[in-house]
Amino acid sequence: MPVEIVMNHATFRKAWRFDAFVEACAAAGMRRVSIWGNEVAEIGLDAARSRLRDSGMRAFGYNRAGPLLADTPEKRQSLMAAAKAEIETAAELGADHILLFPGGIADGAKGLEAARSQTTDACAILNEHARNCGIALALEPLHPMLAGDRTALCTLAEANRLCDRLGSNAGIVIDSYHVWWDAELEAQTALAGSSGRILGFHVNDWLVPTRHLLTDRGMMGDGVIDLAAMWAMVLGAGYDGPIEVEIFSEHWWAQDPDAVLALALGRCAEIFSGEAAR
Amino acid sequence: MPVEIVMNHATFRKAWRFDAFVEACAAAGMRRVSIWGNEVAEIGLDAARSRLRDSGMRAFGYNRAGPLLADTPEKRQSLMAAAKAEIETAAELGADHILLFPGGIADGAKGLEAARSQTTDACAILNEHARNCGIALALEPLHPMLAGDRTALCTLAEANRLCDRLGSNAGIVIDSYHVWWDAELEAQTALAGSSGRILGFHVNDWLVPTRHLLTDRGMMGDGVIDLAAMWAMVLGAGYDGPIEVEIFSEHWWAQDPDAVLALALGRCAEIFSGEAAR
Repeated sequence: MPVEIVMNHATFRKAWRFDAFVEACAAAGMRRVSIWGNEVAEIGLDAARSRLRDSGMRAFGYNRAGPLLADTPEKRQSLMAAAKAEIETAAELGADHILLFPGGIADGAKGLEAARSQTTDACAILNEHARNCGIALALEPLHPMLAGDRTALCTLAEANRLCDRLGSNAGIVIDSYHVWWDAELEAQTALAGSSGRILGFHVNDWLVPTRHLLTDRGMMGDGVIDLAAMWAMVLGAGYDGPIEVEIFSEHWWAQDPDAVLALALGRCAEIFSGEAAR
Repeated sequence: MPVEIVMNHATFRKAWRFDAFVEACAAAGMRRVSIWGNEVAEIGLDAARSRLRDSGMRAFGYNRAGPLLADTPEKRQSLMAAAKAEIETAAELGADHILLFPGGIADGAKGLEAARSQTTDACAILNEHARNCGIALALEPLHPMLAGDRTALCTLAEANRLCDRLGSNAGIVIDSYHVWWDAELEAQTALAGSSGRILGFHVNDWLVPTRHLLTDRGMMGDGVIDLAAMWAMVLGAGYDGPIEVEIFSEHWWAQDPDAVLALALGRCAEIFSGEAAR
């Protein structure tokens, strides 16, 4: 049984809009795509739903609920309303899970203490809303270099602890880029798996040198992450979902998207032993 | 009793060579400096020793023993010989501790497993050598964004575990830039302190946005780290050494070094409540 490969629209963000992205994935033989709310908003919910149905595709991951953090209760309330609306859209599109994006430290704040506590409180509310909508809420620990302006949730250990507090319906997406460096990687992956909460596995690579904190991720195989070992950990933890390709990269965004898609599928076939679903 | 402030030469790397740096620190009323082996090599060990003595200064931290990792035993042996020589130089200059710098993943390797095991083995040998030379070996966990090309030791938890294995003479330098994001920060700082192994506390700041992985550190107070809270943790853990300013920054390297020194001392006075030793 070959491993199913899913493309995240972010990998082709500058070349393809929603329709072209879905079409290209369908033409390559894939059955699911991971999508972004801003792209759905661009064409409207109904058009997005039709496009998926007409091409025989389903939504896997939906990006995203957040940002959530701000310096006043009013701003936080407004952000929470927007996040709830995203959850509803994701559920209406039948996505498997919606990614939580807490966002950066509030204006003028120092340290992560307030961000952590606001994130925990917000997650409890959003997970309840997601449960009612019938969609899983995915926590994704981001690389610690994004702690200043993206999230206060930087390790699998923290994500596991937060999931323990949230209870059912919350899970974790493991992105190789964000957690590959962690000495607790294997133990925390196993822990997440034993609770049945691994919702996705994102792949890309860490380049040496890395030239930009956000947009210099590598194609699988071009960097120093031991992706095969990570995949073995994730499989060993009981995950039976697809592998999702998510590469934020000015370099790859500037290439021909069809060539990038073919290359990504080829690398997935090589590294994760098994044919991509195409 | 005011907190003693120590400057790390890296903060003034492009403006001052060894003599000018030591002279400026002495003129500002400081008693200790943290120095670099390449600067000592530039003027020779005897000249460096005389310059320190003549200005009434002592060496606090010495950078550095490493890199150590390579893809062949021959290369690793040669790197170890160089690291041992640095330990001897640091001891001859009477430095308080020498910083370990493991270095990046070896050519062609994937993942951190081999790097971790080589680092552990090398540290056992180097710590023994440092003990014989009468100088402490300082492990400094570096930010996870440096795991690809600088170190496999990225958290205080790992540094504490490695210190447990190494036994006496090995300790830890806590750099706010590298560990501020860590949810285990307080617990692992307390653990390090309870074992009496905190050898130094480096300060600087995390800028939002951060434009470069190596050379865009901020001046204390300009970023999002809660430095006062970190200092309280370090003090609470029993540390009674100085605060060391280490800022790798193209921005600050391009400014007048006397102004940078005055500003850094001023910020230390503001943030760490207490006058800088000047």
